[in-house]
Amino acid sequence: MMDLSELGEQGLIERIRRRIGRKSQDIVVGIGDDACAVKAYSALLTLITTDAFVEGNHFDLSYFSFKEVGMKAMAASISDVAAMGGVPRYCVVSLLSPPTISVADVDGILDGIEESCDEYGVELVGGDAVGSKSLAISVTVIGEVETENIALRSGAKPGDSIFVTGDLGASEAGRLVLSRGLDLDEDVRAYIVKRHSSPIPRVKESRELVRNQGIHSMIDISDGLAIDAGHIAQESGVKLVIAVESLPICPQVHTVAGASSATALDMALFGGEDFELLFTAAGLDLKEVGSTPITKLGQVEEGSGVFLVSADGTESPLLPEGFKHF
Amino acid sequence: MMDLSELGEQGLIERIRRRIGRKSQDIVVGIGDDACAVKAYSALLTLITTDAFVEGNHFDLSYFSFKEVGMKAMAASISDVAAMGGVPRYCVVSLLSPPTISVADVDGILDGIEESCDEYGVELVGGDAVGSKSLAISVTVIGEVETENIALRSGAKPGDSIFVTGDLGASEAGRLVLSRGLDLDEDVRAYIVKRHSSPIPRVKESRELVRNQGIHSMIDISDGLAIDAGHIAQESGVKLVIAVESLPICPQVHTVAGASSATALDMALFGGEDFELLFTAAGLDLKEVGSTPITKLGQVEEGSGVFLVSADGTESPLLPEGFKHF
Repeated sequence: MMDLSELGEQGLIERIRRRIGRKSQDIVVGIGDDACAVKAYSALLTLITTDAFVEGNHFDLSYFSFKEVGMKAMAASISDVAAMGGVPRYCVVSLLSPPTISVADVDGILDGIEESCDEYGVELVGGDAVGSKSLAISVTVIGEVETENIALRSGAKPGDSIFVTGDLGASEAGRLVLSRGLDLDEDVRAYIVKRHSSPIPRVKESRELVRNQGIHSMIDISDGLAIDAGHIAQESGVKLVIAVESLPICPQVHTVAGASSATALDMALFGGEDFELLFTAAGLDLKEVGSTPITKLGQVEEGSGVFLVSADGTESPLLPEGFKHF
Repeated sequence: MMDLSELGEQGLIERIRRRIGRKSQDIVVGIGDDACAVKAYSALLTLITTDAFVEGNHFDLSYFSFKEVGMKAMAASISDVAAMGGVPRYCVVSLLSPPTISVADVDGILDGIEESCDEYGVELVGGDAVGSKSLAISVTVIGEVETENIALRSGAKPGDSIFVTGDLGASEAGRLVLSRGLDLDEDVRAYIVKRHSSPIPRVKESRELVRNQGIHSMIDISDGLAIDAGHIAQESGVKLVIAVESLPICPQVHTVAGASSATALDMALFGGEDFELLFTAAGLDLKEVGSTPITKLGQVEEGSGVFLVSADGTESPLLPEGFKHF
């Protein structure tokens, strides 16, 4: 089986170039020159975001397929564009890889990147491939958003309600199942593992929220609700008060909690990579966007920090703890 | 001395945010939200390019300072934008690093990135920082170019002359000196090492060439003259004929060759990372751009491949060999 050192960098680029067709008329120069060139539109802001996805830190090849690695490497940056209210358009990818990786495995990674691109309307327009001790993928996504629709962390106002899309804790629960091999019903296991390995950035939901729902602030939950709610509080100069009993904890997270030493609440508050959207808006009564449920978590007040309110009304600070990258 | 694991990802982002001021009015949202947002201009194409710079592959910390690592990580992508005829505007950087790296060393890398940004008018608008076994930096640069000024690899035409900026072989010679500790005069050593550790992307020269000199095709020499000339030949469907005696070999490369087993010609033909511009144009008689010398190397003919012509007129194929990343 051919490995990457035999294929070589140029061989890899040719391989990618052959399989990735140029679809958008906005791509003037695609893969194969020194840079890609795409059309710009003065009415739109360009969004730029980058995320690295590193073996041994974000993923473990003992339980991630190469295709899942490719898909998940894309998720964080696509979700970041969604968190700004934008449409992801283009991506460039740096593949850092041991030279002994097989070409079939590289194809697996490309399969994942391509599937993610197709799913979210993103086009791969360039990249780099270099040798490295361990596998890592750095993805930069370029998106667009109308000036009037951009959603920032800094826009929350006292009086806003706080909302979240989908549910919480599933990615962290899936990570626990994968890394600890918990004893679970196969359906639960398959479901929750997929939530970790193939999270769904909320691109369509984001566009509905910024275009038609007049939201004030937004962030995606990549580092965990506690940390990301803290970002909105800090950047907006406000206090966020979240009701514990309102949290839409994913039902299967309770099952995982029962089979492990973790609590469902901890997974929902501190687990990263759910990629749900956390947003605030005034006077909004929204139960779903498309088929994605929307849950009201609490309200924005004058002050600072994030606080949890329990069923008996006790308020306690929610400290910004979550997954540490170092 | 504090290391990165104590500072943490958020601490690092805050540190970067404090030191990097937002300078351009075109940056609507800078570092600190989910993505940056910059203004777009319909009259300009957006250029996107990414390059990874990996310890043990592109550099060795035994002879690179952290500041040099930061600067050089930027060079390849800035040079790629220059190779398209564009102006580099923004960059995002992923820092993959062992958690034990000291904050002082991270500051060194940031110093290098910042110096490079200042030198070439680029603004750091975002990034990511994650733990990794070895140090790697992935840089994406976003640039702009007028549609009529874009320079491609595919534009060379039979009858064009072939030109190169500056001189050749210096980066490879510097790499040899650093990795093999050759015995050299201190002035030569300092000069040639700097050519490897702090190469100069030809941004200003590129702009003059595309705006005022009517060039037909362009590439930057990142993988070596042999490989990069081959890209122009292949993408343009032409044959490039280069006269050996015309090659502007950096004088100090001859000195390094004398102290090693490498030949100056090999370093000039196959050494990567010179970041000079190789371009073709018809009826152009150009000796310099600003203070940068321009040398005519040969001519474009009907056919395919790259050929070297020796002083006695013998033509031999120049095979696409150079630095292998895997």
